Amino acid sequence: MPLHAPRRAALRAKLVAHDLDALLVTDLLNVRYLTGFTGSNAALLVAADSDQRTVFCTDGRYLTQSAAQVPDLERVVDRPCDLALVARAGKDGHEVVGFESRHVTVEALDALESAADGIALQRASGLVEELRLVKDDAEIEALRMACAAADRALVDLIEHGGLRAGRTEREIGRELENRMLDHGADGPSFDTIVAVGANSAIPHHSPSDAVLKAGDFVKLDFGALVDGYHSDMTRTLVLGRPADWQRDLYDLVARSQAAGRAALEPGADVRAVDAAARQVIADAGFGPQFLHGLGHGVGLEIHEAPALSKSGEGTLSAGMAVTVEPGVYLSGKGGVRIEDTLVVRESVPELLTLTTKELVVV
Amino acid sequence: MPLHAPRRAALRAKLVAHDLDALLVTDLLNVRYLTGFTGSNAALLVAADSDQRTVFCTDGRYLTQSAAQVPDLERVVDRPCDLALVARAGKDGHEVVGFESRHVTVEALDALESAADGIALQRASGLVEELRLVKDDAEIEALRMACAAADRALVDLIEHGGLRAGRTEREIGRELENRMLDHGADGPSFDTIVAVGANSAIPHHSPSDAVLKAGDFVKLDFGALVDGYHSDMTRTLVLGRPADWQRDLYDLVARSQAAGRAALEPGADVRAVDAAARQVIADAGFGPQFLHGLGHGVGLEIHEAPALSKSGEGTLSAGMAVTVEPGVYLSGKGGVRIEDTLVVRESVPELLTLTTKELVVV
Repeated sequence: MPLHAPRRAALRAKLVAHDLDALLVTDLLNVRYLTGFTGSNAALLVAADSDQRTVFCTDGRYLTQSAAQVPDLERVVDRPCDLALVARAGKDGHEVVGFESRHVTVEALDALESAADGIALQRASGLVEELRLVKDDAEIEALRMACAAADRALVDLIEHGGLRAGRTEREIGRELENRMLDHGADGPSFDTIVAVGANSAIPHHSPSDAVLKAGDFVKLDFGALVDGYHSDMTRTLVLGRPADWQRDLYDLVARSQAAGRAALEPGADVRAVDAAARQVIADAGFGPQFLHGLGHGVGLEIHEAPALSKSGEGTLSAGMAVTVEPGVYLSGKGGVRIEDTLVVRESVPELLTLTTKELVVV
Repeated sequence: MPLHAPRRAALRAKLVAHDLDALLVTDLLNVRYLTGFTGSNAALLVAADSDQRTVFCTDGRYLTQSAAQVPDLERVVDRPCDLALVARAGKDGHEVVGFESRHVTVEALDALESAADGIALQRASGLVEELRLVKDDAEIEALRMACAAADRALVDLIEHGGLRAGRTEREIGRELENRMLDHGADGPSFDTIVAVGANSAIPHHSPSDAVLKAGDFVKLDFGALVDGYHSDMTRTLVLGRPADWQRDLYDLVARSQAAGRAALEPGADVRAVDAAARQVIADAGFGPQFLHGLGHGVGLEIHEAPALSKSGEGTLSAGMAVTVEPGVYLSGKGGVRIEDTLVVRESVPELLTLTTKELVVV
């Protein structure tokens, strides 16, 4: 519990600053961040003045689990939790209650308004997400473990001959996922991407029955989930001797990725980080073949703020966890993406995905 | 494509009935239902008058995939898709455009309003979901395959000694999930529940390092995902000779479950179906230990309408796919849940999960 009370304290300071008596937290990941609860239905009414007046709500299925995971807050068991907590806010004398306008749907707000007798419901966007931007030590440790599970799985896959001619993308993906579980993952952190040969030119390719052949690129984009935290890593390998175009393409993306990593520092504009990596690829004439942003924040969500992209906003701070993942995709031929998960630090960023970024020839 | 055009035609009829010139579909599952697109970012502007004026939007990552999956609609590649399509609606002369108020967040609506120059945006709730309530043949076939993968995985698990003393819940869950993949599943349809001994009294228990022992209940709640469709099944078994209380509890839940299945018929009120099963348990004095609703619709979501519960609304129709899953949970001792996935039919319901509901003694 020492994890969650300080997070709630930081949130209470924000509520005071925003003149809110309380915040109705309905996004389940935000509830998890603030309480440790991992079930599939819950909400939280955070009182600005005191943790003693903060109320957690879930339903009957989670009676036992919530008692174990949230022993430090008052709990109510009711359905639906959002309406129960808005009614409770009225009884507790809260007058101005924020709601998570980034998550609450138009229809859910209609229902809240009907239940909010004498309460002013006020848009509050991203207050918990702002806290989640900078990871605390427990979060970074979970990310480290998630990244380590992915790193180890890839080593095992390669060493046990998992990448051999004749295997399908599906078989490779499944082995990779099982090996992550062997190394302590609770599951894959997203749908594993395995793309062989020309399929590697499709940025988000779903594993198919396509077969790995000598000379193919094989692009693996995968991650592990540990304690709710997501790792994210891409490596592109070659089966057998790489052709010159493959080596050139790989070197280009690797240089771009190194430039992106080098740009990660507190205070850096996220667009400048994207630009640092993008320029390397544009200078080589492949700008239009870099089809996506450079990277994204990672934590309780596989994609979260900050976005490292042309349209991203804000600057980096120490403790943010982000991916750096440039790619160049030559349609019908093949593509390369190289991706790490890193933590921004005052000095050099901390690399969490440790697998080599030299071109691995299997 | 023969699958999706008729669904869009049915939606267009609804738009005409609701006096909408177009509907902005932003829920990704609804987009998938209407187009077949399986990527992670897309939206659809469905014009009430013609499929030729319907526009699909995704981003650059899905250029190739969307060309293959959505060849029959005009495609635009832009970001963010909701704003791009609202701007497009203006250019196409649509005046009244519905949006999915059940899914669009308060903040997303603010952005839509800013982009909707000269267009009246109107709440439209559940129009696509109403179509999805009654499954077409292709959907039922996918559900059949998903249920079959789960059935076969359970047979394999039992026959290969997967349920033996000393195994952890985690090991059992992982074997079950792998065996579903062996039988054609794209993945588990939700986080597999394995609960041994007293843990079986926790309705939604996450697999832990708890070890299966002789005399234990073992409750398995699991399902397979096939072509986006979810199966859902629970079986509760006993390792070794069942005690009298276990046999009695099992028989009670089995009788309740049979009563629930028998109540599934077109025109039945969903609350009456819940009540039919609940009464059996209440009559035995265990009403308070039946902690949840009787069942739920299943399809592109693991939980979708209709809810078979005390607070559910509406009546059943032929072609709806639902679960029937009563449970009785004796805290600290053990619990039983028995769950099938079925399709409501004019005559008797079609059972999709075929594993026996006799008490299996392993």
